[in-house]
Amino acid sequence: MKNILFIFFLSINIFSQNDTETIRAIYNNSLTNGKSYQWLDYLSNQIGGRLSGSLNAEKAVYWTKSELEKIGLDKVWLQPVMVPKWVRGTPEFAYIESKPGKTTNVNICALGGSIATPASGLKANIIEVKDFQELEQLGRENIEGKIVFYNRPMEKTLIDTFRSYGGCVNQRYEGAVHASKYGAVGVIVRSMNLLLDDLPHTGSMTYDNVPVQDRIPSAAISTNDAELLSTMLKLDNNIKFYFKQNCKQFKDVLSYNVIGELTGSEYPNEHILVGGHLDSWDLGDGSHDDGAGCVQSMDVIRLLKLSDIKPKRTIRVVLFMNEENGTRGAMKYAQVVAEKKENHIFALESDAGGFSPRGFYFDSDDKNFNQILGWKELFKPYLIHFFERGGSGADVGPLKTSMNVLSGLKPDSQRYFDHHHSASDTFDAINKRELEMGAATITSLIYLIDKYGIVKKPKL
Amino acid sequence: MKNILFIFFLSINIFSQNDTETIRAIYNNSLTNGKSYQWLDYLSNQIGGRLSGSLNAEKAVYWTKSELEKIGLDKVWLQPVMVPKWVRGTPEFAYIESKPGKTTNVNICALGGSIATPASGLKANIIEVKDFQELEQLGRENIEGKIVFYNRPMEKTLIDTFRSYGGCVNQRYEGAVHASKYGAVGVIVRSMNLLLDDLPHTGSMTYDNVPVQDRIPSAAISTNDAELLSTMLKLDNNIKFYFKQNCKQFKDVLSYNVIGELTGSEYPNEHILVGGHLDSWDLGDGSHDDGAGCVQSMDVIRLLKLSDIKPKRTIRVVLFMNEENGTRGAMKYAQVVAEKKENHIFALESDAGGFSPRGFYFDSDDKNFNQILGWKELFKPYLIHFFERGGSGADVGPLKTSMNVLSGLKPDSQRYFDHHHSASDTFDAINKRELEMGAATITSLIYLIDKYGIVKKPKL
Repeated sequence: MKNILFIFFLSINIFSQNDTETIRAIYNNSLTNGKSYQWLDYLSNQIGGRLSGSLNAEKAVYWTKSELEKIGLDKVWLQPVMVPKWVRGTPEFAYIESKPGKTTNVNICALGGSIATPASGLKANIIEVKDFQELEQLGRENIEGKIVFYNRPMEKTLIDTFRSYGGCVNQRYEGAVHASKYGAVGVIVRSMNLLLDDLPHTGSMTYDNVPVQDRIPSAAISTNDAELLSTMLKLDNNIKFYFKQNCKQFKDVLSYNVIGELTGSEYPNEHILVGGHLDSWDLGDGSHDDGAGCVQSMDVIRLLKLSDIKPKRTIRVVLFMNEENGTRGAMKYAQVVAEKKENHIFALESDAGGFSPRGFYFDSDDKNFNQILGWKELFKPYLIHFFERGGSGADVGPLKTSMNVLSGLKPDSQRYFDHHHSASDTFDAINKRELEMGAATITSLIYLIDKYGIVKKPKL
Repeated sequence: MKNILFIFFLSINIFSQNDTETIRAIYNNSLTNGKSYQWLDYLSNQIGGRLSGSLNAEKAVYWTKSELEKIGLDKVWLQPVMVPKWVRGTPEFAYIESKPGKTTNVNICALGGSIATPASGLKANIIEVKDFQELEQLGRENIEGKIVFYNRPMEKTLIDTFRSYGGCVNQRYEGAVHASKYGAVGVIVRSMNLLLDDLPHTGSMTYDNVPVQDRIPSAAISTNDAELLSTMLKLDNNIKFYFKQNCKQFKDVLSYNVIGELTGSEYPNEHILVGGHLDSWDLGDGSHDDGAGCVQSMDVIRLLKLSDIKPKRTIRVVLFMNEENGTRGAMKYAQVVAEKKENHIFALESDAGGFSPRGFYFDSDDKNFNQILGWKELFKPYLIHFFERGGSGADVGPLKTSMNVLSGLKPDSQRYFDHHHSASDTFDAINKRELEMGAATITSLIYLIDKYGIVKKPKL
């Protein structure tokens, strides 16, 4: 059967010739005189991985503050926030024991927030499940005393790899909570990685309300080793798994969101926020997650200045602390905004890697989304084509009101989870032009939001 | 001044619901069961760089033929073609001599087709120019006896990096012809690379009608070393440059285009071609240029079969030999098409790297371009958004008639020239999903062309 579909599209573009030229200037400045790559080189290679509460996170706070102070903002400050401090300790070690004395080493890493194993490690039978439903069906009689191995892979056919991630990450985040209900003694979770390789990928996990004495250690295993373990279990479900980790959760420590702003010339009380998160996991140097978003955000005000744009509204750059394991920075920031009754008309987050920008997600009402769609044509020369409704991001999410618009940059996502939370999230995986294109794309949208404002709802 | 522009767009989409499902199946098959990455791993890592006339090129011919024979085509054959054989010889060596005895080594590589220097190397004063006009203005009195250093960089502000390349490559291709007119003794050209790094990038050059005795050796220098050389020349234009290379042009040798086809069920005499070039430069393993295009083209028929598509028209996969330094394979192929009066209604080339696909260029009349634009919506779920008029590629170009449509895949181009023709064009720079997305994107367009055909002009 052959249906012929006729679909008519109608869109109205509202912008000026001057916008075309200004956006050209922004891209030119970023590609010839951007600072994002140079900043990221320092952040990644001179500071490195910046887990909340670590010395590196502290260094990153003071260094980014000092860099922001150099670019001619009206105000730069640190916003105190108490953050979790979890430390990985000595490198983890694990093996599969197919028979006593016959072992195969595998690559694991403790999940962020996990407890340690006993000092001598933990050895037990291991049982594979694909999801919590399968765990429930197996029940305590099959689970008790064993390590639970969550092995649901990321779905390859989804084009947006963040959706593949979303379909798997509950195994990592809540795996220990569910497994401990049935008496499991540990959790091993397949790394959230679409590639088959040897790198374990860490990430946050929760114990929720599990009493301290019932908490079980949890680690991620590389995708290659997850495949191996699964195959070995099919051959003999009596094999044992051993792992040792001595990570530890300490008391919360003082840290900071780093904030800079340029005061608007006409509407100083209307705030436009752009940001990323300054903390990262500890295995790599956090170049893509989220050094890229930080340096792009830092470069927005530089690029506005270089392009002779004097914002009418107040532009605020925020480098959030502790997105990875607590989002305390985001909560603190939103709390202060509420206390001060600040009006954040727009907030954009870049936290999806430093790859070629493709567009934006918008958390917006219809009127504002339509206004933004009217600007889409301005982005076409830069191959920015993706303007869709969707979530913005963990750090700006708490700022949502019925009156404002949130947004998240959408870079190309095909390579992202190769690196995400692993030892390969490093500066060499960053392409200079892609990073600079992202900074220019964000800056261009900020320029348009500043110029035209958002469509305000009539007060009832 | 603020102009409000109202622009109305109207497009008509003509396709069926079945097309939506078929294209979904093609992408699913490529992302879960594609063979392009596995093939490229072999071609790059087991065979390697495949310069025309080399043993590796011969290996690649026989290996791709044998792989095509495994996928159930109706016919696989080799099309003989004589190709140039140029050999680099031992590694090149070069330095800048600021004073006698004070030298700084720099990274160069001979350009493809260049003659050697004298066995003991060539040392001379060196003069920097940005273009042929500057060369002409300097004239014989400033050029004679010197090495000409072409140092016009790639333009960073162009979003399509192939346009930046197009703006520079005449320095490399014709540099020796122009410089030798004024008595220059050698040519050093800045590598066609947007990055500043240490890798020299080779590529083809011509001596055109320059008599043999007037031909001068030509090499590319890394961008970092081009910057260094330029700076040193500004400080002292009396410095000398030394380089040594022992490359050599041999007599033409026999090689082959590798061709496979699946005969169409309804219109076997309407041919649809998909291809890439099998030869590559010798410094890397040619993964992006153009191993990627070869393995994607090879996977098109596999993916059609896996997606239960039985082509009505004849689908032909062509792996062209000698694109890099002669395009002899393309010329031979077009010659045979003309001799046999074959009707190639459509020909698509993938030769812009294995990066995330963004769309296609089309060399087409209005009617066919409009038909293709009507399919654009089908590609939206895969973030394929770029459908523009433009050139197709060096290998399919000779097939253009007033009756057919040519096309070139357009992947994201930001990273391409980091690797192009250099030692870093290697398999580790390939992302599996990006490569597979490209194969699916090509296959989807081939499917639509096969199903709907092209709009034929009425015969006058």
